Parts: sequence; structure tokens; C-alpha cells
Amino acid sequence: MREITVGGAQMGPIQKAESREAVVARMIVLLEAAAKRGCDLVVYPELTLTTFFPRYWMDDEAEIDAWFEREMPNGATKPLFDRARELEIALCLGYAELTPEGDHYNTQILTDRTGAIVGKYRKVHLPGHSEYDTERAFQHLEKKYFLPGDLGFPVWRNMDAWMGMMICNDRRWPESWRLMGLQGVELVVFGYNTPSVNSQMGGEGLEKRLYHSELVICAGAYQNATWAVAVAKAGDEDGHPLMGGSIIVDPNGFVVAKAQTEGDELITAVCDMDATVFGKETIFDFARHRRIEHYGPITAQTGVKTPEA
Amino acid sequence: MREITVGGAQMGPIQKAESREAVVARMIVLLEAAAKRGCDLVVYPELTLTTFFPRYWMDDEAEIDAWFEREMPNGATKPLFDRARELEIALCLGYAELTPEGDHYNTQILTDRTGAIVGKYRKVHLPGHSEYDTERAFQHLEKKYFLPGDLGFPVWRNMDAWMGMMICNDRRWPESWRLMGLQGVELVVFGYNTPSVNSQMGGEGLEKRLYHSELVICAGAYQNATWAVAVAKAGDEDGHPLMGGSIIVDPNGFVVAKAQTEGDELITAVCDMDATVFGKETIFDFARHRRIEHYGPITAQTGVKTPEA
Repeated sequence: MREITVGGAQMGPIQKAESREAVVARMIVLLEAAAKRGCDLVVYPELTLTTFFPRYWMDDEAEIDAWFEREMPNGATKPLFDRARELEIALCLGYAELTPEGDHYNTQILTDRTGAIVGKYRKVHLPGHSEYDTERAFQHLEKKYFLPGDLGFPVWRNMDAWMGMMICNDRRWPESWRLMGLQGVELVVFGYNTPSVNSQMGGEGLEKRLYHSELVICAGAYQNATWAVAVAKAGDEDGHPLMGGSIIVDPNGFVVAKAQTEGDELITAVCDMDATVFGKETIFDFARHRRIEHYGPITAQTGVKTPEA
Repeated sequence: MREITVGGAQMGPIQKAESREAVVARMIVLLEAAAKRGCDLVVYPELTLTTFFPRYWMDDEAEIDAWFEREMPNGATKPLFDRARELEIALCLGYAELTPEGDHYNTQILTDRTGAIVGKYRKVHLPGHSEYDTERAFQHLEKKYFLPGDLGFPVWRNMDAWMGMMICNDRRWPESWRLMGLQGVELVVFGYNTPSVNSQMGGEGLEKRLYHSELVICAGAYQNATWAVAVAKAGDEDGHPLMGGSIIVDPNGFVVAKAQTEGDELITAVCDMDATVFGKETIFDFARHRRIEHYGPITAQTGVKTPEA
């Protein structure tokens, strides 16, 4: 048994006017609760520190950059990192990253129990669009404000386990899961900000959107025999609802913990990394069963090519 | 609207002693029922014509070859093809194929409404093993009796739609779905023979196995915005239980029809091929969202490589 007690620290809404300091104070409340429940690792949402700003059209560079972090930890997040180090709890959190070179990414980091950053991931599958879209009920401008991640999908050794990261929309792409599965990942951690309403199909409804999120996470976990922890920023941000549904999924594809609210809420599970072994050695023993001689188009072409083309 | 009424013709068990002629008679009963319900296409299971023989260890070449078909249609299946042509119903069925060159495949064919074969698929992801396994509750010798399919995952134009095929265990591999998704597939049809018991983990239970099957089918359909029809051979074959759970899934990943029994049972759904458009043009618009520059390992390596390796 290689047990890691994982906490998913779902965050309720963060209003546009809310300060990072106020958000970090809420994060520390969840961290203290996680410590009481014996957590070794606490996972926070995508873009934890601010409202989901890609819903807003902005032209002013300074206005845009104000949503980004130039270093991590920084002044606002130092109290979180300090307290986590004292409690010997590892952290995963997402934030908007502005590099010294001036590049913008949707980023997530993973620390060990001493607070050292062991892994950084930059979101690869950016949803949405880059130009103003008059057809949508609201904007989703991740392709405007972020570059696609340039770090791939690495896994890192942390707490005697192979851990990997993705962010939000990456979960819908089986390629994200498989790239980590091919490195033996045992625990995939990530956050998301998912609008409760489909900006291009208002009638879809929250229930279907929660189903889609759970579906792809459970499938990705099962098909790669890995634990998965998916953590939402949820609730109403200045009139824009985000869905909750944070879950912890076992390597058999079953939900073992699930958030019940759209507010700040901690879910936890004791995750035995050795529970990944059965799947990896039987039905999903890639070395015996995958047939890469047929997989060429997956990497050779980006879009659809029908046979007539 | 491009509506195709699809029937999933789940078959109950076929005992070892049962003749192909008796099986075909049962298939025709389901075909007649499908005609009454307005079906344009009827999908039968994997290895429709016989018991699931890969559970038996056989050394004698003639005994093995007796489970295979040397041509399709042949004497035993001609009445099915004839009746389908009269009813103008297209067929999909699986069978064990022995080629003129002496190669053995787990094969599935698709006809148009005139009975002409428009597509052939040979199972790529063969589960199980090739040597006698004393650790298993029962054998699963697909790797002994079949070669891996050599035809890839093509799609074919049939009834004004892009149709693709897979077989059984292929459904658990997101690569199967994606390869067809990259060709614009709108309807994936396949059969399966899935033991109700995990031969390597007896306590798993039927409910979890049905969940896994539905999970990967719904995920594959959603992630590629395609209809999917999955048809079981089910029930007790000479003491070896196979699970049912045949389903039709919409391009949004929702089950729209589901078998209730483990016997011969027809499920049907009116499938609008244009219902695939929304997903293909928005969240799963591959051309806009896939990032193949990171996908290399999916085709470059078969098995797991951890970072230390």
C-alpha cells in the first residue's frame, strides 16, 4: 500500500473585485481543514487566485497583465505556501502565468511536502476563441489571453508516486490522459472553471454539463488505470455561473468523493497508489495490447480528413 | 436531418453444439422485427454465428478452423443476406474469418441496403493471451486464435453517412474512436462478447463490468461527436456467462436505447446524423483545438516508459 490522502479544495466564486489576499485567506481555511482530515496533498482549482477573467473582453495590456502572476509563490500567495510547509502538505494550484519574456500561460504547479515546486504544467488544450464572438451568450477568450502550453504532459515523482497534471478542458481530450498514462501516471490532479451554461447552446443545461465532465474524467482514469482529482471553481462570479462537481476518481473509473455545493468545500479520499497496478498489468497493459502501427493519424493530422478529401 | 433508424440485434447465448443455421434463423427473427420497427440498418454481435470459442483451448488446426468462415456470405448466412436485401436493410455482423492465405481474423462486415458489402474491419485490439494461463478462472485466447487486424480503422460512406466499425475490446481504447473521429465518423457500429466475470478478478462483479463498457462507449461517442451502436452476445454459453447491456449512444454521449435482457432482443433508435454537427464544430472541432505537437509518444511508443527509464 502506498496511501496518499488527497484533498480537493473546491473554491466558491471569486468576484472581479476580490483581492488575491482575500482568496488566499479562503485557501488557507481549506488547507487547515485538510490538515485536520490528514491530507498529504491539497488540489486547488484552475486560475485559483482570481475570477475567471477570460470571460471579459480586454484590449489594454496593463489591464490584462493585472490578472497574471509574475512569480510563484509571490507576496499574495506566500502565506499559503508558508502554512502548507508548516503542515507538511503538498499543494497543487492553478494561476495565470506571465513569464519574464512576456508570454502568458494558463499554468498549474505541484509542490512537495516541503513546499518546493516539483512540477509546472501549462494548459495545452485551450478552449474558446481569440476574436470577439457576437454569436455567443458570453465570451470565452482563453485563446486570446494564453499561449498553448509548451511543456507537454510530464509526470513527476512526488510522495513515492507518479503524478501528472492537466487543466480543465484538457480532461475532455483522451490524448492528455494517454500521454501521462504512457509514463505510468498514478495520480492526475487538476482544476477547472467550467461555465454552467454552454455559451453556444443555452438549453444544454447544467446536468448534462456535469455528466460530460464526470464522463471524461472517469473514462480517462479507467483507461489509464490512474487516480484522478478534479477540482472546480464554482458558483456565481458577477452573474456568470460556474459549475461545481469536484470529484476524486479511482483507477477503476469510479467516483469515490464528490462535492455537494458550489462553494468553498473540501473533498478527500485515501488513495492507494497500488490500486493502479491491476489495471496497468491486465486489461490496460499497454505494452501487450496497444497497436501503434495503426495510430499514425492521431499525431500526423490535427483536423478531420474524410476519405474523399 | 439525415435520419437512420438503427437496430441493435442483441443475441442471447449460443451453445457450443448449436449450428450456424439455427443461429441464422434467430438472426432473421430479429431482422423481421427490425423491419416492422422501420430499421434501415441492423447490427449483430461480434462472432455472431457461434459460441465465443476463444474461451476453449484447442490444439487441433481442423478443430480450430471449424469455427471460422471461409467466405461471407456463405451457405449458412445466405438466407440472412437474402432476406435483408428483400427488406432493404443494411447489415453489420461479426464472424471469425479464415482467409484464402490461411490467416485468421476476428472480423466484422458492413453492407449497404442492397446487401453489398461496403466495409470490412478486422479487430485490432485483441484482449487476452496466447498461451494457456493457469492463473485464470477461464481462458481468453483471442491472441492465440486471431492475428491483430491489418485494415486499420477506416470509415465508409453508407446511407449518406460516415460509418466506422470496431469490435468489442477496441471500445476501451480511445485510439480506436479517435482514428475514426479524425475521418469524420458519424456512426460507429460494433459487437462484443464480454464475459460477465473478470477471469483475473472474480469479485469484480457484473455491475462494474457493465459500467466500464457503457463508460468507454459514452466517452468515445462524446469525444468524437458520433453515434455509437454496441451490441452484445449475452447470456450463459455452456456455463460461461456473457454480459448484455447493448446500447445506442448519441453524439452527446447519452444512452438513448438499452437492452433489458440477456437474450435475443432488439433495441432501436432514430439517429439523426446531423446531430453530430454541433460537437464537431464547437468543443470537438479538432482542427482548432488538437495540439499534435505534444502527441508524439502516442504513436512513438507502445508500452509505458517512466521518466527514469
